Amino acid sequence: MDPHVVIVGGGFGGLYAAKALLKHKPGEPTIRVTLIDRRNHHLFQPLLYQVATAGLSPGNIAAPLRGILRGQKNVQVLMAEVVNLDAPGNAVILADGSRIGYDYLIIATGASHSYFGNDQWAADAPGLKTLEDALEIRRRVLLAYEQAERTEDPAEREALLTFVVIGGGPTGLELAGALGEMAHLTLRENFRRIDPAEAKIILIEGVDRLLPPYPPDLSAKAEEMVTRLGVTVLTKTRVTGVTDRYVTVSTGESTREIPCRTVLWAAGVQASPLGKVVQSQTGAELDRVGRVIVEPDLSVVGFPNLFVIGDLAQFAHGVERPLPGVAPVAMQQGKYVAEVIRERLAGTSPEMFRYHDKGSMATIGRAAAVAQIGRWKLSGYLAWLSWLFIHLLYLAGFDNRMLVFLQWLWNYFTYTRGVRLIVNRGINEPREKGK
Amino acid sequence: MDPHVVIVGGGFGGLYAAKALLKHKPGEPTIRVTLIDRRNHHLFQPLLYQVATAGLSPGNIAAPLRGILRGQKNVQVLMAEVVNLDAPGNAVILADGSRIGYDYLIIATGASHSYFGNDQWAADAPGLKTLEDALEIRRRVLLAYEQAERTEDPAEREALLTFVVIGGGPTGLELAGALGEMAHLTLRENFRRIDPAEAKIILIEGVDRLLPPYPPDLSAKAEEMVTRLGVTVLTKTRVTGVTDRYVTVSTGESTREIPCRTVLWAAGVQASPLGKVVQSQTGAELDRVGRVIVEPDLSVVGFPNLFVIGDLAQFAHGVERPLPGVAPVAMQQGKYVAEVIRERLAGTSPEMFRYHDKGSMATIGRAAAVAQIGRWKLSGYLAWLSWLFIHLLYLAGFDNRMLVFLQWLWNYFTYTRGVRLIVNRGINEPREKGK
Repeated sequence: MDPHVVIVGGGFGGLYAAKALLKHKPGEPTIRVTLIDRRNHHLFQPLLYQVATAGLSPGNIAAPLRGILRGQKNVQVLMAEVVNLDAPGNAVILADGSRIGYDYLIIATGASHSYFGNDQWAADAPGLKTLEDALEIRRRVLLAYEQAERTEDPAEREALLTFVVIGGGPTGLELAGALGEMAHLTLRENFRRIDPAEAKIILIEGVDRLLPPYPPDLSAKAEEMVTRLGVTVLTKTRVTGVTDRYVTVSTGESTREIPCRTVLWAAGVQASPLGKVVQSQTGAELDRVGRVIVEPDLSVVGFPNLFVIGDLAQFAHGVERPLPGVAPVAMQQGKYVAEVIRERLAGTSPEMFRYHDKGSMATIGRAAAVAQIGRWKLSGYLAWLSWLFIHLLYLAGFDNRMLVFLQWLWNYFTYTRGVRLIVNRGINEPREKGK
Repeated sequence: MDPHVVIVGGGFGGLYAAKALLKHKPGEPTIRVTLIDRRNHHLFQPLLYQVATAGLSPGNIAAPLRGILRGQKNVQVLMAEVVNLDAPGNAVILADGSRIGYDYLIIATGASHSYFGNDQWAADAPGLKTLEDALEIRRRVLLAYEQAERTEDPAEREALLTFVVIGGGPTGLELAGALGEMAHLTLRENFRRIDPAEAKIILIEGVDRLLPPYPPDLSAKAEEMVTRLGVTVLTKTRVTGVTDRYVTVSTGESTREIPCRTVLWAAGVQASPLGKVVQSQTGAELDRVGRVIVEPDLSVVGFPNLFVIGDLAQFAHGVERPLPGVAPVAMQQGKYVAEVIRERLAGTSPEMFRYHDKGSMATIGRAAAVAQIGRWKLSGYLAWLSWLFIHLLYLAGFDNRMLVFLQWLWNYFTYTRGVRLIVNRGINEPREKGK
């Protein structure tokens, strides 16, 4: 029987591992691959904020896993949820109780945001991780403008037109920038009683600057650019409470309440629950946010046929600090693990994983981004063009890269965001509480 | 104070009325318009089946009403639900109890499908009227294939791969044709255990042919074309039961059960509930399906400032049979009523409404359609090209007409349907019962 690799999770890590397991040299066995995901699609997460802010459609940034891997006959895609693991018995266990045995297992189920122990904030401050999250955020933002247009109460109107984004990392910056553009450019002339440009967009960050892992001068540039889009940046500000009426913030000694109806959460990291499952089955250590601490070859200590990659893994070998939870790390780890499995089957032993850092970038809005590529630091138009180019490049494998590009061009030149649709619940239906 | 026109409903009728109320001749008063809709978007309904079958994104066929009417300063768009009417007092009443007064009122809230008194079938046989309906149908169809790939039970697999479409009018034909294409072309090579081409698609019609209002030879052509796409057509067949396990059909004397997991409803017409409200307020007559029987100028008898247009109106003056519930009728009635209001304000009296029938067409699939234009009858490739051309033409006013065209071209040449996304509920979550 050909060796069987099970991959759990169809994000960047899992998908790139599956793709890399296609190739085999003459004489090597064909590797059977089963890719399991709860969803039927791969999501191009770096552009998810564009769906949340009505610039792109879900179909532009997500593609069915089966479609992507259509031609790769050795891969079986299964839409199912892995809830447990039998590491000594080499099997994963699905939600319906069935077992799937493996020779090698790759776990790549990623991470989500963390409310730092305040999970009750989730209903009023949704985060951005899935298509459903993005559509819910889009719905709330658009509905707030609709309700502001209808209300007769000036205080209520002001609260409806106050949008709070919590977390000054790349996602928070992207969301706040896009909300600023929406208020000042997209919705111009759309309303008769309110002026969307009067909307307040507040970006809150706990430390003393935006984009903390970036060099301070790029943080300063980012703050300058996002402020120009009409966003108010509050640094050194901690959030101590979130309700459906206001956000409570604390700056040093003083505490105040910001009345608002739309709060978006873009802070914290929390590893997928499969991290804990791996720990209980293998005794592997987890880090503070629940990521599995992996060996130099990305396997779990004592289980050389069990790999954890991407946002669920904490890799700290030969690097100054653990690798960040970004798409390029996951992609490279996916490819690397495929190579490790192939070498093991051939009886050779692979070198340790090394991350090739090609730089990092964050976008803020129209023609505004910051980028760090090696020793180069870019900001403004050129950084934005690089961002655009690189993101389009990596949409490869998506049929609709060209359509996304055209949609972008269209949005850019016409200042529109065409996908301003409110679906699922209307103006008379209350917000759903809890997840 | 400038005269105030309230329009209820932002479909083809309401939107075209609002647009036509922009123009005014020198010396005429500016007409203030309030357009009220429960949703924030206008929906290009003729292409809704493309969203249900994963060919287009919601954003391709829907556009925010505010965006469309952005430049028309005399129009105020309100996202709200009209639940009642005070016809003698010239006011509409919203769900929150507030009243909006009018000088002229245009009601254009359309119609939906009818389960002929079997509303309990709705949960297992969703119809196609809103974006939510389309996304739910897409989800069910895609999930059925996913579950078929996972099940070990051959009878269950067969039921999962049986898709029943009830109603052989244009919508039923479009849905069945698209499901046939999906099974035979789009999903080819996507699965490893099932062959999507083995899916059974069954189209059920009560009378003796598809497309009953069309000439019999076009009905025969349509049946031939849809059969070629792998669809089984059952005519003279009545549906007597729908559950989540099977559809019960009766042909003449015999009755049988078709085991299936996906049933789509494309039969019957039921006017919007505002028809009954109009009746109780004005004493207007309703027809069998609840449409308001209107005067030659589309007003309600005894209320010359209250108009009902589009699918909610039954217009039978100077025509052989009442006008059909299609987009061109609604568009022309919207424009006509705007003209009537302008003439009334000028003190002149308008001629009665006359429908200019430019023909009708139904599409079946790739390069397959039937059309009747005056005495011309077309079928096949040429009819399909006409259908494509006319639908793109009427997407005017939508920013993204070009993008829809490109998406279509892409789908056509690559046989793909890129928007095959399952959102909202996953594979372990049961179907929602009831609406």
